[in-house]
Amino acid sequence: MSKFFSEKYASLVPYTPGEQPRDMQYIKLNTNESPYPPSKKAQDLASEAAKRLQLYSDPECTALVNELASLYNIKPNQILLTNGSDEILNFAFMAFCDSNTPAMFADITYGFYKVFAQINCLPYVEVPLNDDFTLSKADYLNAGKTIFIANPNAPTGLALNLDDIEEIVKANPNNVVVIDEAYVDFGAQSAISLVDKYDNLLVTQTFSKSRSMAGARLGFGIGCEALINDLKTVKYSTNPYNVNSMTMAAGLGCLKDEEYTRKNCNQIIETRQYTAKELKKLGFEMTDSATNFLFCKHPNIDGGELYLKLKEAGVLVRHFDTDKLCQYNRITIGTRQQMDALIQKTKTILEDKK
Amino acid sequence: MSKFFSEKYASLVPYTPGEQPRDMQYIKLNTNESPYPPSKKAQDLASEAAKRLQLYSDPECTALVNELASLYNIKPNQILLTNGSDEILNFAFMAFCDSNTPAMFADITYGFYKVFAQINCLPYVEVPLNDDFTLSKADYLNAGKTIFIANPNAPTGLALNLDDIEEIVKANPNNVVVIDEAYVDFGAQSAISLVDKYDNLLVTQTFSKSRSMAGARLGFGIGCEALINDLKTVKYSTNPYNVNSMTMAAGLGCLKDEEYTRKNCNQIIETRQYTAKELKKLGFEMTDSATNFLFCKHPNIDGGELYLKLKEAGVLVRHFDTDKLCQYNRITIGTRQQMDALIQKTKTILEDKK
Repeated sequence: MSKFFSEKYASLVPYTPGEQPRDMQYIKLNTNESPYPPSKKAQDLASEAAKRLQLYSDPECTALVNELASLYNIKPNQILLTNGSDEILNFAFMAFCDSNTPAMFADITYGFYKVFAQINCLPYVEVPLNDDFTLSKADYLNAGKTIFIANPNAPTGLALNLDDIEEIVKANPNNVVVIDEAYVDFGAQSAISLVDKYDNLLVTQTFSKSRSMAGARLGFGIGCEALINDLKTVKYSTNPYNVNSMTMAAGLGCLKDEEYTRKNCNQIIETRQYTAKELKKLGFEMTDSATNFLFCKHPNIDGGELYLKLKEAGVLVRHFDTDKLCQYNRITIGTRQQMDALIQKTKTILEDKK
Repeated sequence: MSKFFSEKYASLVPYTPGEQPRDMQYIKLNTNESPYPPSKKAQDLASEAAKRLQLYSDPECTALVNELASLYNIKPNQILLTNGSDEILNFAFMAFCDSNTPAMFADITYGFYKVFAQINCLPYVEVPLNDDFTLSKADYLNAGKTIFIANPNAPTGLALNLDDIEEIVKANPNNVVVIDEAYVDFGAQSAISLVDKYDNLLVTQTFSKSRSMAGARLGFGIGCEALINDLKTVKYSTNPYNVNSMTMAAGLGCLKDEEYTRKNCNQIIETRQYTAKELKKLGFEMTDSATNFLFCKHPNIDGGELYLKLKEAGVLVRHFDTDKLCQYNRITIGTRQQMDALIQKTKTILEDKK
């Protein structure tokens, strides 16, 4: 830290992205990326856009906004595109929280929420999940705070159903409820169907997981026009050209190939079910995941130890070294072949423990 | 504005990007874009990167950082890449200003500085330029504030020499001085040569202008390691994967084709000199631009009127409707052919006025 760094950030602890070691080639199951390449249409449109980079990107992302509006059956002015969904989440913390309106989220959820609160010097409350990692709906009724819920949740993989989400949104008419649907395409119900009914609901999604575009950085928020306008005010006050032309083009290509996305999601769900079954045979316990990862532990081996031994064996998974999570690992669903390798190596590690 | 929007932003006025009308095809001289396409190497590497978008981009931008370090003869840990230079500027406002340390910048400069101060709820001081748009160095000595200087300045086009910059940096040992060099490649001296000497100097640059990559969104900051670490803390607390894979690849390709960039810059400087000479023949007065634009006015026609008449004639220039600037227009230097069209149409407009 330099002597010039503002004191307001004295206790700030930045987010730690999943490791990307370069010492060898790993089977990478640690950052919930898709094992499938982006749609060919996405690749082709991005390549075309690369030829015209001398011109600024469209700050309104018009073509992409229109395509998304058509896909989700909403109006174009109900959408804002961002540089990954981290950006729209940060904008929501900025726009809808302040010293009078704290942020509120689960104690076990996307680790970035706490960092967004801290970087914006906002008060926040972490609400403990139940021991089985389920969320207690009652905690979120009439909360008097801006609520952030990842649905499905990470790293637990658990989803709330749409009725529960609606009850929470309805019970907080004076506060914004943000539903972060990064993993929704792998088995949960989207709350986008509710945005016309509730003026306090913001739904965020990303192209990183189900759409195979993590490297392109594209996320979006959907809500009523007034909420989206607030977020646009923040965008035009930080980075008007936040989405680059190539990413915009890739996003458009991806949406024009929705069938490919659905096929990949179905394949990942199938591979998740297979992997869950095989890991259970080996004695693993796990939550009922509605995502592209499994959150699991084994009675005979510590989560940190399994993580390290898998890494030695060339497989990267994500381990969180906190009291409530340290027994677990979060394992991204890759291809069937990758998961077979994981299962085989895990089996060997468990046998060596005997 | 929704009822949920934080009161802290009640008086926030977002930045207005240059207009991008779609009603017809314009000769676009309003946003200081390069008239030349990006390097073929940039296009090719970006297209390659588009095939692997399912993987997150490297949050450390390792390959690009190393290439820049080699180009500018500094260490990799003295560089931070961002989603356009707007992002690194915003990070600098966040990191180095607070209620005890206001921001300070000229009253006529990049319009976004004021917005960055406002979105971050920071106190700021605008220092009037002299009547000829030059900056009075004395105003910036022992300022006790975090200083932001665009060099060359926009929309005036005027540059400070390196000795003056160094004197300002030296005279503010307890405050960060940010030199925003978006236009430096068109005729000013970079302060990058001073970063090893002063721990309070941050230099920012962009790939948008001289490197023909406005649509890719790539900017960077260079300073001592401690300053860069502070900015990294902000980055990893807002958007760790802020630069996407395609932009990173395009940036790398661009740097591997430095000759192409230099050739384009020289061409633009030559066209600027030609355009300035021709506009002076028509009676225009202008500043001595060290950028890829001219900042000029004519005694016989109001700046706003000329802007509108040029737009009707199919040429877009940038007009700022404020007291001190309204007589002027900022005209981007395009190709020789584009500038000949501008000159011809301007001549006709002036003749019609007689």
